[in-house]
Amino acid sequence: MKRWNIAISGFGNVGWHVAQLLAERRVRYANLYGVDVRVTAVCGSDRGLYDPAGIEWEYLRECRKANGGLKLARMADAAFTGPSFIADCGADVLIEAGPTDFHTGEPALSYLTAALKQGMHAIVISKGALVHDYPGLAALASQQGGALKISGATAAALPTVDLCRYNLAGCEISELNGIFTGTANFVLHLMMEHNLSIAAATEEAQRLGIAEADPRFDLDGWDTACKLTILANAVFGCRLKLSDIAVSGITTSTVEVATWRQKGLVPRLVGSLTRASHGDVTAKVGCTLYPSDHPFAHVKGATKAIQVKSDDMGDLVVIGGKSDPRATAAAALKDFEHILARMV
Amino acid sequence: MKRWNIAISGFGNVGWHVAQLLAERRVRYANLYGVDVRVTAVCGSDRGLYDPAGIEWEYLRECRKANGGLKLARMADAAFTGPSFIADCGADVLIEAGPTDFHTGEPALSYLTAALKQGMHAIVISKGALVHDYPGLAALASQQGGALKISGATAAALPTVDLCRYNLAGCEISELNGIFTGTANFVLHLMMEHNLSIAAATEEAQRLGIAEADPRFDLDGWDTACKLTILANAVFGCRLKLSDIAVSGITTSTVEVATWRQKGLVPRLVGSLTRASHGDVTAKVGCTLYPSDHPFAHVKGATKAIQVKSDDMGDLVVIGGKSDPRATAAAALKDFEHILARMV
Repeated sequence: MKRWNIAISGFGNVGWHVAQLLAERRVRYANLYGVDVRVTAVCGSDRGLYDPAGIEWEYLRECRKANGGLKLARMADAAFTGPSFIADCGADVLIEAGPTDFHTGEPALSYLTAALKQGMHAIVISKGALVHDYPGLAALASQQGGALKISGATAAALPTVDLCRYNLAGCEISELNGIFTGTANFVLHLMMEHNLSIAAATEEAQRLGIAEADPRFDLDGWDTACKLTILANAVFGCRLKLSDIAVSGITTSTVEVATWRQKGLVPRLVGSLTRASHGDVTAKVGCTLYPSDHPFAHVKGATKAIQVKSDDMGDLVVIGGKSDPRATAAAALKDFEHILARMV
Repeated sequence: MKRWNIAISGFGNVGWHVAQLLAERRVRYANLYGVDVRVTAVCGSDRGLYDPAGIEWEYLRECRKANGGLKLARMADAAFTGPSFIADCGADVLIEAGPTDFHTGEPALSYLTAALKQGMHAIVISKGALVHDYPGLAALASQQGGALKISGATAAALPTVDLCRYNLAGCEISELNGIFTGTANFVLHLMMEHNLSIAAATEEAQRLGIAEADPRFDLDGWDTACKLTILANAVFGCRLKLSDIAVSGITTSTVEVATWRQKGLVPRLVGSLTRASHGDVTAKVGCTLYPSDHPFAHVKGATKAIQVKSDDMGDLVVIGGKSDPRATAAAALKDFEHILARMV
C-alpha cells in the first residue's frame, strides 16, 4: 500500500486534533484510497518529533496534559523543528496549524515555502501566511505540482472556498457575503435578543468561552477581514491586501439596537466581496442590517454563514458548521481527502 | 490539446442548454484544464446528430424553434440514436438528459449502461435510471473506471451529493433532511402566507408556470422520494428502493394552516434520511412542521434547501440554487469539471 507521510507544524490544540483524527481515520484511508497514512513529523516552536516509520498515536496522545495543555516539549528534540526540518522530513503533506503573525505571515510562511519547494502538498489552518501572501504561495504550489488547500483558514467547517470553486464550478461569482466570526455574531445576538450593551454582551461571551480575553480582533472586524482577504485572492484570483479592505467592527449602541428592533432589522457583522463586470473586486467588513426575511437574519448565536451569488446556478446560502478545534481539524482533513481523491 | 468528446442523450430543453453552456465555456475548459471539449453526438428518442469532428454550436442552436420547442428531427438522422449509437460514438462522456420511466429506468438505463460499458464517464440529469438502479450503475462505473456523476438528478444547483461527499468528506453523516421539490414548497408558502386552499394555491402555481399540468408527482411527495432514493444510495451506500420509503404529500387543509400559524409553526414538504448507529437507513417523505427559528421555516417560495448532520463538522444547512433548465445544465457541467479536475 502506498505510504503517505504527514508532517504537522504547530502542535497546539488544533494540531493535536489533526493527529487524533488522522489516527482515527487510518482504516478509512486504507479502504477508500488504498493508502497507508502516517504522521512522521510533528513540531512546535522550539522542538518536535520525527520518526520516518510513523509516530504512534498512543505516543502523541500523551502530549496532551490532563488540563488540556500540551507537553510536546517533554519528549521532543530541539533539532526537530524549523523550516529546514520540514524541508528534510520527507513528508508528502504538510499540515500547518501553528500561530502566525499577520504582518509577516511568519513562522507559517517559511514552513509552507519550505514544504512547497520540496513538492509537498500543503494544508493550511493558520491564516497569517495566507493573508500575507496567498497569491505567492499558490503560484509556488502550482509551479511545484503540489496542492495548496485552505479550508481550515477560511471558516473551517463552513464551506467557503469549496462552495465557490467546487459546488459552483463553472459559474461566475459576482458577490460573496459572510458571517465569518462566530464571536461577533454571538455578541450581536445577545445585544438584540437580551438587550445587553456591547460591553455586557462581550463579557458574557467571554464567560462562556466564546470570546477571547482580548476580543478586539474579532469584534473590530479584523478576523472577518483576514478571512475575506484570503477568499478574495483564492476565489477571484485577485491580489487584494488586508489594507485594501474598508473595515469597521461592532460599535452598536443600545439605542441603535432598540431602533433596529422596532424596524424589524437585524444587524450582522459581515464581510463582503463584490466583483464588478470589468473584474475589479471590492471588499468591505462592517455591520449590515438585514430584514427578517433574509436568511442571515436567522443566523443565531456563534453560528457562521456564507451567501454566494452566481450567474448560472443562482444564489446559495450555507449556514452552520461546528467551530471547535476538532471541527477545524476535520476541515483540514477534508482538504486532505480532496488531495487523496485526485492524486491516488 | 487533448480532445474530450461529449455525447448528449435527450435533447429537450435541458439537453439544449447543456450544449449551449458547453459552447460558451469552451475557452474556459481550454484555459483551465488544457482540453478541447466538443459535442460529437446528440440524440433524441427517434433520431440524432453525429460528427466526430464536433457538431458546431451554431448548428445545434438552430434546433430550438422560436416558440422554445426543439426541432432536432428536421436535420437529424434516424440511425444516430439508441444505446448502440452511444456505445459506438467514441465519446469520453455521456450526458444523459432524456425523459425516463421511473418503473423501468428506461430509456436512460440502457443509454447509461452502454456508455459505462465503453469506459465513458456518465453525467446523469434524468432521475429514472438512478431511482431504478443507482447501485448497479455505480458498480458498473467503478468496474470500468468511469465516473458516475448525478448532481443534475439530485436537486441540481442546490448541492446535495457534493455536500455530503465533498464538503463533509471524512465525516459520518447521521441525518439528511431536504426541501427538494420547489413546487411543493411554493404551494405550501401560498397556503401559509396568502391563506389559499391547496386547490387555489396549486392553480396559482400552475398559472405562474411553477407547477406542472399534473402536479401530483410533486405535491404527493414522489419527486422528493425519487431524489431521496438516489441520495440514500449515493451518500449512505445502501440499497434503498423507492418502495421502501414512507411517502405522504401535501394534504393540508386551511383549518390546519390556521392552527399552525397560530402556534408559529411552518409546514414544509421534507424528505428525510436517518442512519442509525448500526448503519440502517430510514427514509420518509411528508409534511414536517418547523418552529420559526429553524432555517427551513424561512425557505420561501419555490426555493430548495438541505440540512445535513455530521459528527465532526456539525450541521450544515444550504438554501437556494436556481431551478431553471440552464441551472440544471450548469449543475451537470459542474460535474463535468469535477471529472476534468481529476482526470486531466
